[in-house]
Amino acid sequence: MFKKLSLAMVSLLLLPSLGLAEEAPTTDVTYILNTFSFLLSGALVMWMAAGFAMLESGLVRTKNVSIICLKNIALFAIAGVLYNVIGYNLMYSGVDGGWIGSLGLWVADDAAAKGGDFSLGYSAGSDWFFQMVFVATAASVVSGTVAERIKLWPFLIFCAVLTGIIYPIQGSWTWGGGWLSEMGFSDYAGSSIVHSVGGWSALTGAIILGARKGKYKDGRVIPIPGSNLTLATLGTFILWMGWFGFNGGSALALGTVDAAIEQSTVYINTNLGACGGLIAALIMLQLLYKKVDLTMTLNGALAGLVSITAGPAAPSSIGAILIGAVGGILVVLAVPFFDKLKIDDVVGALSVHLVCGIWGTLAVPIFDSEASFLVQLLGVAAIGAFVIVCSAIVWLVLKYTVGIRVSEEEEYAGSDAIEIGVEAYPEFGRGSSSMRIG
Amino acid sequence: MFKKLSLAMVSLLLLPSLGLAEEAPTTDVTYILNTFSFLLSGALVMWMAAGFAMLESGLVRTKNVSIICLKNIALFAIAGVLYNVIGYNLMYSGVDGGWIGSLGLWVADDAAAKGGDFSLGYSAGSDWFFQMVFVATAASVVSGTVAERIKLWPFLIFCAVLTGIIYPIQGSWTWGGGWLSEMGFSDYAGSSIVHSVGGWSALTGAIILGARKGKYKDGRVIPIPGSNLTLATLGTFILWMGWFGFNGGSALALGTVDAAIEQSTVYINTNLGACGGLIAALIMLQLLYKKVDLTMTLNGALAGLVSITAGPAAPSSIGAILIGAVGGILVVLAVPFFDKLKIDDVVGALSVHLVCGIWGTLAVPIFDSEASFLVQLLGVAAIGAFVIVCSAIVWLVLKYTVGIRVSEEEEYAGSDAIEIGVEAYPEFGRGSSSMRIG
Amino acid sequence: MFKKLSLAMVSLLLLPSLGLAEEAPTTDVTYILNTFSFLLSGALVMWMAAGFAMLESGLVRTKNVSIICLKNIALFAIAGVLYNVIGYNLMYSGVDGGWIGSLGLWVADDAAAKGGDFSLGYSAGSDWFFQMVFVATAASVVSGTVAERIKLWPFLIFCAVLTGIIYPIQGSWTWGGGWLSEMGFSDYAGSSIVHSVGGWSALTGAIILGARKGKYKDGRVIPIPGSNLTLATLGTFILWMGWFGFNGGSALALGTVDAAIEQSTVYINTNLGACGGLIAALIMLQLLYKKVDLTMTLNGALAGLVSITAGPAAPSSIGAILIGAVGGILVVLAVPFFDKLKIDDVVGALSVHLVCGIWGTLAVPIFDSEASFLVQLLGVAAIGAFVIVCSAIVWLVLKYTVGIRVSEEEEYAGSDAIEIGVEAYPEFGRGSSSMRIG
Repeated sequence: MFKKLSLAMVSLLLLPSLGLAEEAPTTDVTYILNTFSFLLSGALVMWMAAGFAMLESGLVRTKNVSIICLKNIALFAIAGVLYNVIGYNLMYSGVDGGWIGSLGLWVADDAAAKGGDFSLGYSAGSDWFFQMVFVATAASVVSGTVAERIKLWPFLIFCAVLTGIIYPIQGSWTWGGGWLSEMGFSDYAGSSIVHSVGGWSALTGAIILGARKGKYKDGRVIPIPGSNLTLATLGTFILWMGWFGFNGGSALALGTVDAAIEQSTVYINTNLGACGGLIAALIMLQLLYKKVDLTMTLNGALAGLVSITAGPAAPSSIGAILIGAVGGILVVLAVPFFDKLKIDDVVGALSVHLVCGIWGTLAVPIFDSEASFLVQLLGVAAIGAFVIVCSAIVWLVLKYTVGIRVSEEEEYAGSDAIEIGVEAYPEFGRGSSSMRIG
Repeated sequence: MFKKLSLAMVSLLLLPSLGLAEEAPTTDVTYILNTFSFLLSGALVMWMAAGFAMLESGLVRTKNVSIICLKNIALFAIAGVLYNVIGYNLMYSGVDGGWIGSLGLWVADDAAAKGGDFSLGYSAGSDWFFQMVFVATAASVVSGTVAERIKLWPFLIFCAVLTGIIYPIQGSWTWGGGWLSEMGFSDYAGSSIVHSVGGWSALTGAIILGARKGKYKDGRVIPIPGSNLTLATLGTFILWMGWFGFNGGSALALGTVDAAIEQSTVYINTNLGACGGLIAALIMLQLLYKKVDLTMTLNGALAGLVSITAGPAAPSSIGAILIGAVGGILVVLAVPFFDKLKIDDVVGALSVHLVCGIWGTLAVPIFDSEASFLVQLLGVAAIGAFVIVCSAIVWLVLKYTVGIRVSEEEEYAGSDAIEIGVEAYPEFGRGSSSMRIG
Repeated sequence: MFKKLSLAMVSLLLLPSLGLAEEAPTTDVTYILNTFSFLLSGALVMWMAAGFAMLESGLVRTKNVSIICLKNIALFAIAGVLYNVIGYNLMYSGVDGGWIGSLGLWVADDAAAKGGDFSLGYSAGSDWFFQMVFVATAASVVSGTVAERIKLWPFLIFCAVLTGIIYPIQGSWTWGGGWLSEMGFSDYAGSSIVHSVGGWSALTGAIILGARKGKYKDGRVIPIPGSNLTLATLGTFILWMGWFGFNGGSALALGTVDAAIEQSTVYINTNLGACGGLIAALIMLQLLYKKVDLTMTLNGALAGLVSITAGPAAPSSIGAILIGAVGGILVVLAVPFFDKLKIDDVVGALSVHLVCGIWGTLAVPIFDSEASFLVQLLGVAAIGAFVIVCSAIVWLVLKYTVGIRVSEEEEYAGSDAIEIGVEAYPEFGRGSSSMRIG
């Protein structure tokens, strides 16, 4: 299914599968409403970058807080520029059933609309804005997993390649009208195309980087608690809120009755997916450990959100709760699983975005009879294989040229003291506790 | 006045009293705009849940921060599911002048609109979403008052009953078209129906729970300062912002000129109510104590917001400032009053949401000649009596079965260490100060 | 160019210069959409007040955190009331090419629209709301610069004069249709009219107040690190998000195809300006100091945002990146420059809002052939001269009556302990470190 091209084409492909009536021709009012939906939804998705920043700075140790803040806001800036200069056209220009678009700077073309032809359905700029914030989301996923041990500049270079090249190419396959879309692969707002892409990149990076010193010792997993759980909670709330734009805006329209109804359904199901994920994680924790855990509960909500993202328009309310709940259960199981493999994921992003991204994509056919389980599986595998190979190449090139891992000295002292020169909380939070681990 | 049912019925009841012209028949554009208003306003109200979480985690002590975060996000998840499974229909389905709706899972019915009949005025799903976030707000009020001494699971069970049964039943009386609405009770966005309901539940809970150890000692009130006032400030800003959706969206429409003008008035008055509340509290503090206080000033803004909520469409700008200012004065007086009664309200939620919720409801007739002071008083009393009785039953059943109060050991050590197993700020904030009180 | 008056007049003046087609007559739908754009954009700008609060409370020392929170939320309340009682009419009522409007309480007049005449283009209330949040922004700029040494009440009095009188008068010159607008001065969303006004007021205040004790000692500049860089990061993200409303809403319309396209362009360029500013600052820091710095990087993003604000509708994407990048470079150079002059600017607001506000205003003619560099320079100078004189008078009157600077004792102990009586983080952050400086 396309995520761009003319609205008319989208309708043709997408709407019949949802049982919606055919749409009326696009008028100026429809055009304005679709545009406004992209802009406001996009602003909400931009806000998710702040959510990732707060979540991650709450889950690292004090000594690495400034640098995780810096990474999160810098990657958003880099993603914006790269997607403008190269990414967008690579994803959306002339893909035509293939696997890659064309090279070239993106330039808004709204001449037709200004001349009274509204068939594109929305202003070209609003579409670019909405797509751009999605790219940034994929990069935000990566920073959490590889935190507390990766060097700043190599990380930012990786983000530039991810957002300028890797993400757009795989995105062209489905949302750009490429080969996966022709096969019928369905990923409404990007459980695979956004979240698993971030997840695969993060997984490759985490393996190549290795675990933090002291995380795995004598066969045991040493818990390294986050330094600021209120910020982690705030980050989760921000992400939850932003997700209404992420999934709701992915209706790609607002200006028809059917689109407005679809956005309503998507808002409800997005919310209920998060509810289901949180409650399931909470119950699982109580049953498994006789104790709840705040960080894991937050990840439960996020797991529900990622899980519902591939198909939020089709399920009933109860269906959305269940899809989210499975995500919440998965995340509680996946976190110790990755630890068992000694893959050190600082914030649990692999469990949330990769595992639940896959689950959400595979769950689409349950409620959408037009989707095929095998095609969904193929999409997951193709995207995974491509992103693993590409990101491994980038990580390895960086590793054997500039290096990607901070020195042992820096890891003990914290990147804030060494790379940034200023700590996040200079008047408190110092002292032995921040160097306790390792 | 209905808060749901067809827009046409709302217009019939509500608009003449505001002196607005009769509306044109609902078109598809009106339908889309009304729907979009519900969705975006609802997202802003959802954001208020984050505001409560930040406000409350800023006002408890470090040792109880993780658990208050957990409660706030978990109650939002529970409210969403319960309102879907039982609450909505109990509040809005077939009330017909009575005092309760019908049992049953809520299912969106948009067949009419898809068939070209737009008389409902908005998509059923957008209305559900908007109503659901209001339920969660009522529950958010409770968590602050009973913080630092209530057990996690009993609290969550209480929230489930509140959001699934108690809130919807009393809500049906007015917004569901029940007996109070037939009498002409007027509560635009819920000073009574949302805020006082949270307040009454919290009051009952606080009395049954008792005060925190060490709060009232030898006839004196021991101040227990909040641990993080920047978060409390952030929470207040979030609530202020979210309130534009809370009150603005309660116009229940956007797609007519009159509705757009009404939303504008509501935005202005909501803002000026908060301004009046804050400034009045600030001046009161300076006059009474020769010193201002941040927490109380924040509560002044919130008091203004709660006060204007029952009737934000009718007053002039100056009227809105004055309604808010009375709220700000009330909150400065109410906080020591509750302390005198030894009712321990950790964040001042009773003073803000209950006292000002009542004030705001009673203030409606000042600017709205259609409203009657006696009916407003009756509404306040009926809602209060119902919620006190119901919530007392639930709190007492919980108390004498699973217990609602944490052990004395847990209260001293903090719930984070005992129930959650991880503190919010493990690298700072520990030590003697967090156990200073008691 | 007007920022108010009828939409038709705005179109007449503004649109030809942007090469947009003439607009269709205003219908009810256009009216509703324009109104809704003002309300939602205004809510986003209101949210910027929270951004300033977080940024500033993150960049002051622990001992002055409560009071900076209090100032930021109180100034927003004061701005709202003052702009209602006096400011709006001073800025927008009967300016007619002159330099000041009329005295009088603002009252919404929507009778024409209710009677079916939509030529104003939007509800009067929505316009007031949108203009009001801009006033508050100017005041927010001031609080950061003069933090950690100014008394609470004199500061609030200054804010009242700034938002009630100084800002509206200079605003009338351009957005109110005064003499600068007649000369063709162009400032789309207020690089000069909002940001530099805050900057000039802050500069005057900082000079009259003097530096913090211990900031400049024996010819050296003593760095005083902020206490909470996650909050500073959060504040920057909030400002970034809010800026979509700030600049996007300044299209003053949404309900035509041309306006929707214009808002899209503004969103993109606003975002890319921030990206350019951040990336340029990051690179500059690495080149100059061989080390990056989080605070300065955040200021780079804000510098980009301020720089693009005077003309976000005209440049291409690359143009927007470059305008922002120059801002990012300027901010890295300006911060040590002000320190050299011993002008103590706690958060770097002069470098961000004043320096880049001027730069952004002067950069307008680069991409907008209708704008004249000399007129832009004249506007910058006239606004600067007026605000410097007026604010100096107010600061000096306050200084020689009630006094503006806290006692030396209070400055050492922190305003939170002395003026507020409660610290922001009472359980951590105390001790020697917070009194280390001086």
